[in-house]
Amino acid sequence: MNRSEIESASRRIDAGEKPFLRQTPLWKLPGSALGVNCAEVWLKLEHLQVGGSFKARGMLNRLLANPMPASGVIVASGGNAGIATAAAARSLGVACEVFVPEVSPEAKRARLRELGATLVVTGASYAEAFEACLARQRETGALLTHAYDQPEVVAGAGTLAREIEAQGRAGQTAPGAGPDTVLVSVGGGGLIAGVAAWFEQRARVVALEPEGAPTLFRAREAGQPVDVAVGGIAADSLGARRIGDIAWQVTQQYVQDALLLPDDAISAAQQWLWKEMKLAVEPAAALGLAALQTGVWQTRADDKVVLILCGANMDPSRLA
Amino acid sequence: MNRSEIESASRRIDAGEKPFLRQTPLWKLPGSALGVNCAEVWLKLEHLQVGGSFKARGMLNRLLANPMPASGVIVASGGNAGIATAAAARSLGVACEVFVPEVSPEAKRARLRELGATLVVTGASYAEAFEACLARQRETGALLTHAYDQPEVVAGAGTLAREIEAQGRAGQTAPGAGPDTVLVSVGGGGLIAGVAAWFEQRARVVALEPEGAPTLFRAREAGQPVDVAVGGIAADSLGARRIGDIAWQVTQQYVQDALLLPDDAISAAQQWLWKEMKLAVEPAAALGLAALQTGVWQTRADDKVVLILCGANMDPSRLA
Repeated sequence: MNRSEIESASRRIDAGEKPFLRQTPLWKLPGSALGVNCAEVWLKLEHLQVGGSFKARGMLNRLLANPMPASGVIVASGGNAGIATAAAARSLGVACEVFVPEVSPEAKRARLRELGATLVVTGASYAEAFEACLARQRETGALLTHAYDQPEVVAGAGTLAREIEAQGRAGQTAPGAGPDTVLVSVGGGGLIAGVAAWFEQRARVVALEPEGAPTLFRAREAGQPVDVAVGGIAADSLGARRIGDIAWQVTQQYVQDALLLPDDAISAAQQWLWKEMKLAVEPAAALGLAALQTGVWQTRADDKVVLILCGANMDPSRLA
Repeated sequence: MNRSEIESASRRIDAGEKPFLRQTPLWKLPGSALGVNCAEVWLKLEHLQVGGSFKARGMLNRLLANPMPASGVIVASGGNAGIATAAAARSLGVACEVFVPEVSPEAKRARLRELGATLVVTGASYAEAFEACLARQRETGALLTHAYDQPEVVAGAGTLAREIEAQGRAGQTAPGAGPDTVLVSVGGGGLIAGVAAWFEQRARVVALEPEGAPTLFRAREAGQPVDVAVGGIAADSLGARRIGDIAWQVTQQYVQDALLLPDDAISAAQQWLWKEMKLAVEPAAALGLAALQTGVWQTRADDKVVLILCGANMDPSRLA
């Protein structure tokens, strides 16, 4: 995974007559606006992306980069990856089958159906639904999308970092106008892999995980990807049980810091983003602010820090 | 009210060491992203302003443009104007008294108290609370802010239009890069007065009101401001009973179109903004999209249309 693959992904997903993806706003604020002791906080409002998360970038790239079988696309996910795959498939006019476990909430199923997906509810767990999905894929030959561990998916996520850098430099002439630090929430690692592969050494990319889903943290302790029990407030979007192989390789090369945050700090930051900023985001999108508010990540006074608000697929009544 | 007063307001509210106001994002999208047949829709995300609405601009300008009495600031409002006044007063370190009627919801009272305001709950209606507020003001000599009908408040609102125009032109070199049309929700008219006074003839500024609160619409029928019965979904922020004198004068000069929208169209647009765009806004902020989605305002294929998302002070569980 490297900048050249991300550049290719960017050209691929920006082509086409009718735009599917959105260029989401980069909102530059003084650190004081968020009560943070640093020069600037850049909020990347990627929760406003089509499908309500950054995942649409990677899924569209995966679909465009491969020959499309007559049977269309297939995915196992009741969450953001499923929504993004279904939305991308619909925009291209191809069929989409989504496998979800029996425990998946009805609201998410309804959203997938609205997006035109054929829903298959099977298995007691995500792992069982995934096995059924793989068996079905062998039968139909459909194009499989994975939530985080496919090169096209990671490169698509990397286009988010490319966009941040371009937006950050717009209207600026001085060198060194880029951010100092980028705080990224980690589940399976697709987003951080794309972001770190884009920035290389030009910004410090920091991995943040909930204490209840320490997938990258435990892999670093073990010296290799390991299965981890996951739970807690952000498990629906950050609850991958094992860091992806691509993410493992990229983060080993470029990411020095992998930090954990307790659920109460994540929840407090999510509520603060709504109450003080009127940004309605899912818990996974609040880890960056939680790290700043708790001091788990410490800024210097002249820092420019990027927070990626990565998703907004949640029940808004949780904010009331 | 004119561009020069708005320029002065802009300089005034941008001064000061610690910024209080936020430069909110202007999000340019292709019309197709909102299902609208026009070249571009520019969403001004002013619901992300401090205090959750555009009102903070005018209130800060009012406070800075006048000598501050020892008794501080006073206002009668349980809504966005009260929140904005209290927030601006706190940022300047001055006392703030807010009068609200007995019918005001506890959630809004709690928010005002959090902002450090002294709350006075009195009167069966807003009109009674306002009378009590005026009597108290005569007693204390505090600086009174009005929700929409003071020159400093209108000029402050006009800085929003100035900001839109500057953001719209950023990075563009061609002449005529400004918007063709600006759709503005109208309650007492403070916002549209500021916006129309800024744009003059350079963009078509369109007034939108709920059918249940047709303050400007009825004034135009009558040929002068008249009292109107108000109600409906957006009454808490657009429910002024009479168009302001400043707004009346400015709109007579610059606004050709004053259009009404039914509550169900407003509600549908508000829900759509959450579901498809993950923008959580109050009903008042959805009138522009409602006008486009219903065809009450018709665009041409090459139009650039601005929608001002003016506030987000509502119960998010209403979006679920």
